[in-house]
Amino acid sequence: MLKIKDIGEFGFIDSIKPEETVEDLKVGIGDDAAIISPYGEFDIVVTTDMLVEGTHFLADTDPFAIGYRSMCANLSDIAAMGAIPKFYFVSLGINPERDFNYARDIYKGFNSLAEQFNTHLAGGDTVKSDKTIISITLIGYVEKSITIERKGKIEAKDLVISVGPLGYSGAGLEVIKNKFDGFDELVKVFLYPYPQIIAGRILGQSKLVRVMMDNSDGLASCIENLVVKNGFGAILFEEGLFDERLKAIAEFTNRNYLDFVFNGGEDFGLVAVIKKDGFLDLSYFLEKSLFNNSVKVIGEITQNKEIILKRLDNSLLEINKSGYVQF
Amino acid sequence: MLKIKDIGEFGFIDSIKPEETVEDLKVGIGDDAAIISPYGEFDIVVTTDMLVEGTHFLADTDPFAIGYRSMCANLSDIAAMGAIPKFYFVSLGINPERDFNYARDIYKGFNSLAEQFNTHLAGGDTVKSDKTIISITLIGYVEKSITIERKGKIEAKDLVISVGPLGYSGAGLEVIKNKFDGFDELVKVFLYPYPQIIAGRILGQSKLVRVMMDNSDGLASCIENLVVKNGFGAILFEEGLFDERLKAIAEFTNRNYLDFVFNGGEDFGLVAVIKKDGFLDLSYFLEKSLFNNSVKVIGEITQNKEIILKRLDNSLLEINKSGYVQF
Repeated sequence: MLKIKDIGEFGFIDSIKPEETVEDLKVGIGDDAAIISPYGEFDIVVTTDMLVEGTHFLADTDPFAIGYRSMCANLSDIAAMGAIPKFYFVSLGINPERDFNYARDIYKGFNSLAEQFNTHLAGGDTVKSDKTIISITLIGYVEKSITIERKGKIEAKDLVISVGPLGYSGAGLEVIKNKFDGFDELVKVFLYPYPQIIAGRILGQSKLVRVMMDNSDGLASCIENLVVKNGFGAILFEEGLFDERLKAIAEFTNRNYLDFVFNGGEDFGLVAVIKKDGFLDLSYFLEKSLFNNSVKVIGEITQNKEIILKRLDNSLLEINKSGYVQF
Repeated sequence: MLKIKDIGEFGFIDSIKPEETVEDLKVGIGDDAAIISPYGEFDIVVTTDMLVEGTHFLADTDPFAIGYRSMCANLSDIAAMGAIPKFYFVSLGINPERDFNYARDIYKGFNSLAEQFNTHLAGGDTVKSDKTIISITLIGYVEKSITIERKGKIEAKDLVISVGPLGYSGAGLEVIKNKFDGFDELVKVFLYPYPQIIAGRILGQSKLVRVMMDNSDGLASCIENLVVKNGFGAILFEEGLFDERLKAIAEFTNRNYLDFVFNGGEDFGLVAVIKKDGFLDLSYFLEKSLFNNSVKVIGEITQNKEIILKRLDNSLLEINKSGYVQF
């Protein structure tokens, strides 16, 4: 076993340095700071996330999966801004007694997802820590004409749409915990979620988006931030949320499947409020552009400030406006 | 005591949000990511550092000092690129049982230094962790015409210069540990070091700088990176390094004062290799522009690849080219 302490910080930095020159990266790993040269007409988008052993993962969790997942969380935030991910910076806290391959595999996890989006490691820090700590900062570009926030002007009759899975990650965890057979799609979203960068770009370019965020805290948080805090209500369609697989896992585990949808999170899809006019064309284009990820209309904005769920049997259920939604 | 867990993540985010609107910050704290709009002709400079309880500070270390110091480390990296600091992002790992004021004071420490350089908090992440973890990402701008790296073309007869204290921080720690009276200037550099942003800007604008870095790892690391790795040697002048106060502390603690200078680090000054022509004017301008911080010529680049220290008595001493320098 090659220990972290045997190769030292600089040896470690050398081992994670990308070999090729990267466009727009004037100064990369190894200097006091990195220098990035953005295109002329772009804004710089920055997001950062921290994962800590004991809170977000365990000492024996697969390091590749940890790296993949933390990169996904950051990419998903960039997707929610309609931006293009470009560079990432990693601060890693690591125990010097750890196997070098453990740290390498975390970086392999980062890169396996980042490289799919042409996103490169550009710097970071490595420090001694008893427990593993990962802090990623991801930098992207977005056209100055596109600024997609959570807070914004929405209108009655606007649509609430969802891109990607909703509730799969939470249900996938139950599949693993309870060792249910099948349900590979749920498990895949839990283990290897997919950030909706491409959908975010298409939505951003469409100019139809009023407000958008990623669904990593569950649908309840999206509705609270995008609808309630912007001064409106919504009628949500259970038809757009219903999923046979979620329902099966919910039954096996004695829960309501809507609990996964509203409170689960960690799916790394997108939820947006968008203008109704033009949505049909957009959704056709989105469906054709995405890999295996559904775009669904899940609700409509109402002047009335309540959040109503229209059940499959057409009955109406008022649900909490904020926080955890009890079913 | 108001515990972190009592106010929750969003309450905490609200408490650290700056109130005013900040120029160039299109979207700030509270969204998936921040959006920064740089000036037209600027590159984006990014640096990131992580500090972990148990490694960099103790559970009972003054939180304001922790915040101040970690901000200083990041600003110093920006200074070494000749750049203007603009925005910072903080990921904080914190135990929910901690006093809320503890976390507030860390942020006060960040801000007390950052605001001196018109640098603003723009986003971050807050996560649960047994031990306190601070990860700062600092973003600055620098003119596209200025790119100051560690690696670069240097020439024989170039000067090696130092800005700010060298060895004071390490000696200051000894003053505290041994409870020596006086030596306030050393203690101040250890507790509240000052990042050389202004000197970095002046040096960057001067176009005289060949290569530069901050001295946070000590002079030995600067010489290794700026001189040896760039294919040259140097003669260093003890006259430029000598300091009565360092000498006194070294004697009290049975060390050589040059040990503080070469191996101490954490002073957050700058070391550069610069062109000889024009330096006199520059040094006059630098001395007049800086608060209480000396600019010193500490050496000259030589074709010969050795690193020689010219002692006060004019004797010559060859010293290690890399790593720790033994005295």
